Amino acid sequence: MARVHIHPVQVEFGDCDPAQIAYFPNFFRWYDAASRHFFESCGVPPWRELERSTGIIGTPVVDAHSTFIRPTTYGDRIEVHTSIGEWREKSFLTRYRLMRGSELLAEGWDVRIFAIRHPGDASRIKAVPVPEDIRRLCE
Amino acid sequence: MARVHIHPVQVEFGDCDPAQIAYFPNFFRWYDAASRHFFESCGVPPWRELERSTGIIGTPVVDAHSTFIRPTTYGDRIEVHTSIGEWREKSFLTRYRLMRGSELLAEGWDVRIFAIRHPGDASRIKAVPVPEDIRRLCE
Amino acid sequence: MARVHIHPVQVEFGDCDPAQIAYFPNFFRWYDAASRHFFESCGVPPWRELERSTGIIGTPVVDAHSTFIRPTTYGDRIEVHTSIGEWREKSFLTRYRLMRGSELLAEGWDVRIFAIRHPGDASRIKAVPVPEDIRRLCE
Amino acid sequence: MARVHIHPVQVEFGDCDPAQIAYFPNFFRWYDAASRHFFESCGVPPWRELERSTGIIGTPVVDAHSTFIRPTTYGDRIEVHTSIGEWREKSFLTRYRLMRGSELLAEGWDVRIFAIRHPGDASRIKAVPVPEDIRRLCE
Repeated sequence: MARVHIHPVQVEFGDCDPAQIAYFPNFFRWYDAASRHFFESCGVPPWRELERSTGIIGTPVVDAHSTFIRPTTYGDRIEVHTSIGEWREKSFLTRYRLMRGSELLAEGWDVRIFAIRHPGDASRIKAVPVPEDIRRLCE
Repeated sequence: MARVHIHPVQVEFGDCDPAQIAYFPNFFRWYDAASRHFFESCGVPPWRELERSTGIIGTPVVDAHSTFIRPTTYGDRIEVHTSIGEWREKSFLTRYRLMRGSELLAEGWDVRIFAIRHPGDASRIKAVPVPEDIRRLCE
Repeated sequence: MARVHIHPVQVEFGDCDPAQIAYFPNFFRWYDAASRHFFESCGVPPWRELERSTGIIGTPVVDAHSTFIRPTTYGDRIEVHTSIGEWREKSFLTRYRLMRGSELLAEGWDVRIFAIRHPGDASRIKAVPVPEDIRRLCE
Repeated sequence: MARVHIHPVQVEFGDCDPAQIAYFPNFFRWYDAASRHFFESCGVPPWRELERSTGIIGTPVVDAHSTFIRPTTYGDRIEVHTSIGEWREKSFLTRYRLMRGSELLAEGWDVRIFAIRHPGDASRIKAVPVPEDIRRLCE
């Protein structure tokens, strides 16, 4: 069974919009933070250290989706439950479940690559195969 | 053919992340701004005015997706091309194309509802049928 | 001696800018969250409940300042130490110290009012005297 | 007389908080964007290009202040009027006036340095003297 990492989030006033509910792009910020905490919990170093040793600058998102089921607002303490859904050759699928206690507030997934700077054009990025050692740490 | 609205965006330093590229949740912020500007360009009043007259507090997103094709960074001037893909009884599908000149950087869509506060529980929201007059303004 | 509330913050990748350090406007987001948590820890209800009972919509900032001493980056676990510096008739001064362990990263303050909607013009806000019961809860 | 650069901003729904007004940390985001546009308008290249040629990674803020006079909300088109208040040896003072037409909404200033990465500790930054050629471009 896939490893599940739980990342707690406090919803803040500044995360909410004039409809008094958390502004939906923040859900993607929370998923993204949860993704990095997932790797951290597996023992993967911060991207800035990986960049020095391997050139990998992070795990940019190439595809992202979320369904928003129930709103949340400031004062709520919620959790992102994160797991890897699938490892592919050059990308991986991560699943997120946003919970308030036992209530499911939102479900998301994204597809990410491991990226290095494009040789010869620093403004572009380039996928590299999923590093075996990172994958092993995360299983 | 569907009406297309073009919303210009300047990518700022503060929109970018340590990988030097625009942080992906900002794409959803740009789509969301483009959605509101689409309605504004059709003559639909701000939600805060609609709330007073109709109770409608906005068009919360129930489903959102984006594919990220090419990164963008600060200094770029880009555009969100917005159109309504489908009107349903209680929701509608909006499509977004993020362009830098003729280059497609990202493609997104979302499903939104017209929402009022839940009668009896102000912390919840409730979908209402798509208002005919708003739909007519937007076609 | 003034009550001090400690609000823990995890610095996330998405809080950082292309210089690899936390983007400075986020310090004000953290101070603002810390301010609300300060009131929460004193037993003051969320603004949305106060609005229903008293019309008070929150404590908008009228003046804000921060000195940035050392940068912080993602992976850091930091704390905002918050205290009320001074209660005035229609405003109050809050002080913030941003700490990483025993290292002072930043120091800020802001002046806030208790605000209601302007009678007759909902787009404006209006200061009211600091409510005695709230002040007493916070001392 | 100091050169003044005008940076237009559209206030978006997602910039606003549950009090229906622009969330104040966004004012600092707008000032920061205006600061970079000021340099851009003077012919200074993007920081990522300067980094390659001079090691300068940007102009981090060491001190920031704003007074908030009138609120603004989504739908507003506003402007940041930016000018350099003072050039010092290793820092400079920038002034910002946030206008809605002829109405002054907020006034801010910040002190910034030109920074390079600390030799020997990439997680720290270090001020360098204000580059003469950049200063000359901006006068």
